[in-house]
Amino acid sequence: MLEQIKTISDLKKLDIKQLPQLCAEIREKLIADVLQSGGHLASNLGVVELTVALHYVFDEHDKIVWDVGHQSYVHKILTSRGENFSSLRQKDGISGFPDCDEDERDCFNTGHAGTAISAALGIAKARDTLGDDYNVIAVVGDGSMTCGMTYEALNNVKDTKMLIVLNDNNMSIGKNVGSATLNMSKLRVGKYDRNKERLKKFLLKIPLIGKPVYKFLRWCKRRAKLGFVRNSYFDNFDLKYVGIIDGNEVKDLVYYFTKIKRNVTKPTVMQIVTKKGKGYAPAEADPELYHSVSRACSPSDTLDSAAVVGDALCSLMAERNDVVAVCAAMAKATGLDSVQKKFPNNYYDVGIAEEHAVTFAAGLAKGGAHPFVAIFSSFLQRGYDQILHDVALQDLPVTFLLDRAGFVGEDGKTHQGLFDLSYLTQIPNMVVWSPSTYKQLSDMVIRSVNESSPVAIRYSRYLSEEERGFDGHWNVIVEAEHPKLYVLAVGAKTLHNACEAVAECERVAVVEVTTVKPLDTSIMEDICRDNAYVITLEENILNGGFGQAVHMYLSSMGYTLPILSLGVDDRFVKHATIDEQIEECGMGTDAIRERVSQILKNH
Amino acid sequence: MLEQIKTISDLKKLDIKQLPQLCAEIREKLIADVLQSGGHLASNLGVVELTVALHYVFDEHDKIVWDVGHQSYVHKILTSRGENFSSLRQKDGISGFPDCDEDERDCFNTGHAGTAISAALGIAKARDTLGDDYNVIAVVGDGSMTCGMTYEALNNVKDTKMLIVLNDNNMSIGKNVGSATLNMSKLRVGKYDRNKERLKKFLLKIPLIGKPVYKFLRWCKRRAKLGFVRNSYFDNFDLKYVGIIDGNEVKDLVYYFTKIKRNVTKPTVMQIVTKKGKGYAPAEADPELYHSVSRACSPSDTLDSAAVVGDALCSLMAERNDVVAVCAAMAKATGLDSVQKKFPNNYYDVGIAEEHAVTFAAGLAKGGAHPFVAIFSSFLQRGYDQILHDVALQDLPVTFLLDRAGFVGEDGKTHQGLFDLSYLTQIPNMVVWSPSTYKQLSDMVIRSVNESSPVAIRYSRYLSEEERGFDGHWNVIVEAEHPKLYVLAVGAKTLHNACEAVAECERVAVVEVTTVKPLDTSIMEDICRDNAYVITLEENILNGGFGQAVHMYLSSMGYTLPILSLGVDDRFVKHATIDEQIEECGMGTDAIRERVSQILKNH
Repeated sequence: MLEQIKTISDLKKLDIKQLPQLCAEIREKLIADVLQSGGHLASNLGVVELTVALHYVFDEHDKIVWDVGHQSYVHKILTSRGENFSSLRQKDGISGFPDCDEDERDCFNTGHAGTAISAALGIAKARDTLGDDYNVIAVVGDGSMTCGMTYEALNNVKDTKMLIVLNDNNMSIGKNVGSATLNMSKLRVGKYDRNKERLKKFLLKIPLIGKPVYKFLRWCKRRAKLGFVRNSYFDNFDLKYVGIIDGNEVKDLVYYFTKIKRNVTKPTVMQIVTKKGKGYAPAEADPELYHSVSRACSPSDTLDSAAVVGDALCSLMAERNDVVAVCAAMAKATGLDSVQKKFPNNYYDVGIAEEHAVTFAAGLAKGGAHPFVAIFSSFLQRGYDQILHDVALQDLPVTFLLDRAGFVGEDGKTHQGLFDLSYLTQIPNMVVWSPSTYKQLSDMVIRSVNESSPVAIRYSRYLSEEERGFDGHWNVIVEAEHPKLYVLAVGAKTLHNACEAVAECERVAVVEVTTVKPLDTSIMEDICRDNAYVITLEENILNGGFGQAVHMYLSSMGYTLPILSLGVDDRFVKHATIDEQIEECGMGTDAIRERVSQILKNH
Repeated sequence: MLEQIKTISDLKKLDIKQLPQLCAEIREKLIADVLQSGGHLASNLGVVELTVALHYVFDEHDKIVWDVGHQSYVHKILTSRGENFSSLRQKDGISGFPDCDEDERDCFNTGHAGTAISAALGIAKARDTLGDDYNVIAVVGDGSMTCGMTYEALNNVKDTKMLIVLNDNNMSIGKNVGSATLNMSKLRVGKYDRNKERLKKFLLKIPLIGKPVYKFLRWCKRRAKLGFVRNSYFDNFDLKYVGIIDGNEVKDLVYYFTKIKRNVTKPTVMQIVTKKGKGYAPAEADPELYHSVSRACSPSDTLDSAAVVGDALCSLMAERNDVVAVCAAMAKATGLDSVQKKFPNNYYDVGIAEEHAVTFAAGLAKGGAHPFVAIFSSFLQRGYDQILHDVALQDLPVTFLLDRAGFVGEDGKTHQGLFDLSYLTQIPNMVVWSPSTYKQLSDMVIRSVNESSPVAIRYSRYLSEEERGFDGHWNVIVEAEHPKLYVLAVGAKTLHNACEAVAECERVAVVEVTTVKPLDTSIMEDICRDNAYVITLEENILNGGFGQAVHMYLSSMGYTLPILSLGVDDRFVKHATIDEQIEECGMGTDAIRERVSQILKNH
């Protein structure tokens, strides 16, 4: 049946009774394709019925904003991208997140959590201002209810006509935290499902009157959910509330959406419960593990930075009681799950609440603890003001652990860690380190507790397994006597490429930049003394990055040669493999080799 | 009496009956001193009783975190800074905000709204981890209840022992907005006060039994407020609630604080109502106007950027229905109050919710409107991720209006607009403009609606009244034939200083930099052609700022002279006048003159 659904109109022609079958087929396709291509599996399995029902009931020009966006696969399949779906997350293929450039029915790009209600509210207000006529729907996971900006948005919805679907699966990426979140929905899918099924079975067994009674009760329940059920959390925002609805029952969803679409003029929250990973037993059992699967068909278990960080923190905590760790809803991915297990009293998961995480850490430091804040590079952007205003301004010893710095590959432009060198080095008092080896990462974690200033350690998921450690200085990896050219490389991949690129060259030094701020002045002096050319390499935006800092520093020393800075040139970088992205930005081995030989030839 | 209070111990020796007199004296001092020195008047007048009661009841080693911090004057007076208080906000004088470097009883620096509960929670968790024993109190205005990060923090308090005093004066800086905020406290001071006073008067008139009945009723009321009153908003977070208390009755406050200090083990929210501006009639009547008074003894009414922005927006809106304006609780200060009056349907105040403001604007742009987001430079730091991820990534035409860019003078380090050039230029697709004249500011506002990319206009409060407009290019203000040196200046003050500095020099050109991103390539080419030296000037941190961009650009053109970049060198700049701050950072006229003559002499 799925093959016949080329357009949304095809979907709308189906009888409601055919929808469960369609959902089953979509689920099959999801499991097959995503296990092949890699991507977010569990969340998409949970929203199959929701997405089908939304498109079945609402019109094609209505706007659906998918919060976080990693659950938009079914939406993509239904909006003409099903055939090309096996190209998911590959270079020039389908993006793993909503992307307006890909299809206009992706009405708002998302990637970070908690933006959907703000965006949907903006769209709805523009609609009302310009006299347009369409529905606006924000689909928000319960994890995003821990985001401050979701709250800020709810606080502004007032009487704007829009629908908020709260997709409650009791999960952020990891397990949900927070008092309000818990109180928001005390009914959970397990218990709810069991009771409902039990009643239905019991009634349908009764001859003659069983079925009418069941239907009557269902009608009562539906009316009650539409009109009378209250939720004290949403009452605070004066929002009409409908719920709790089983979000994996497509016919129920169609019923409620139809009613809401027809009658509602007020802003409405519809709370549904869905099962993350629904229909794929391994994902149902461990939805966090199957949150995102790698292309290798199953969650990866090779050594990565998270494991190294977890081990280093545990070894610190074994010695010192004042070391504490903070994460924002991502214990496993940051490596803090091992801390959580071994030192639960020194571990805090604050939910998807990066702003709070940072200022909370500032408070911890003020109180005499040494906090480690483990948040992916891209997500820590949320805490920029807090790092500056609450941590750095008071020069507090907080260590930030930024995994997924640099290119992140398949997650694409919303998740790139390509800005941290800029947004961190511009902040006074900040110290910024970048390891290329796991050993360095571990050394940095341990060394950072002795720093009196805030330290940010930024690294990509996979580093080199070489045994090189960190002593606070840059390391000359390829040595040369009186070099004509220094290649200064930040990060494992570019360092590796630089070393390969200069393998055949003479008088070229390759330097591993471990401290991006402050710069290593002794190597700066060597460069001036040798009056050598410089190439800088970084997996970061060029504006405000490492290269520019080198420019200014050398210039202040009277250095007068042109400097070549390679990095990301003022643009967003789409999904592809990390190697493809590095090549695209001119930092592949061949590209570096060419730049090097050009400089050597001309001078 | 105030003169005898040298230490907190002196305060504690007073009889409770003496406290109202002390409060009256503090209030007198505040009015006299702040009208002289300038500063935040209305909010401090509101919290006199609160501060006295807190210090009277709690111990000196207990930690009080003042959210926003501009209401900490009374705290400063009581903690040994009363004598020096007339130096408030002046160079080397008392800071207008809590500052740990000034006194350790300022236990956490604040300035931006909404950080206190996060910080206090961090301190409390560190206390519990390290086995310390003290109370932690966060004093939070109701305006901060519109901040997402306050919500994120409340969501994490759980069973941590701490006290949150919600100081409810129905105000952010401007009037409060938001559904939750309104529902949070439906009782407001006006009605509450009236009823209470009426009852008291009535009872005390009854002979014999009147007074005992009044006392009994008061006892009942107090017990009820301590034990039985609920608040559905705070119930969501499982917090114990005490309220609503009259926050301008010092004896009541002492009563409740004493009870809470003695008994409470759970986290507690105590909601008090206070009157902003209390005791000074003009400030009571218009607390927003008296939120911050300038040193000239009264709120200023000279032309400023806010007025220019307001006029330009109104003239745009008169022609186009699609133009909308968004502010974050600061209509007057941003100039949007005139928009609010004339075009209320195109105006949005979202509360102190900068993150939401930015993504909301992205939604407005997606829906076809052209939004202007007016947020002070320092506060827009909160929206860094949203600018990047929601606006710039989709290349949406949103105009950001950043008043108070550059040095801000007396508000000091938490409020400096010294980072925006860095945090904005690093974002792809962003266009960044900087006017030096009011005319340019107006031109830029109007021109920005025709840009297809997001535009940020950053400016200080006062600009030059010269008639020079904006045509998209840099302007050569001091011309020279074949200059030996170009001085490139961003912003009115530095441009003015540069022009003065080179008045006697030959072959020096001074350029007004109006577009910080992109750079004006034709002037860059002139510089290369003339092989001239370059000085860059900017009221911004050097890392990631304008100067570094010039370095990299010129270097990429093969330019080989050293460039001198002046700006703020990797540090926070404390309160002083703007001119003092500019001098401190080496950009006063004399300093520039010396730099210029050095370069001319050596070459």
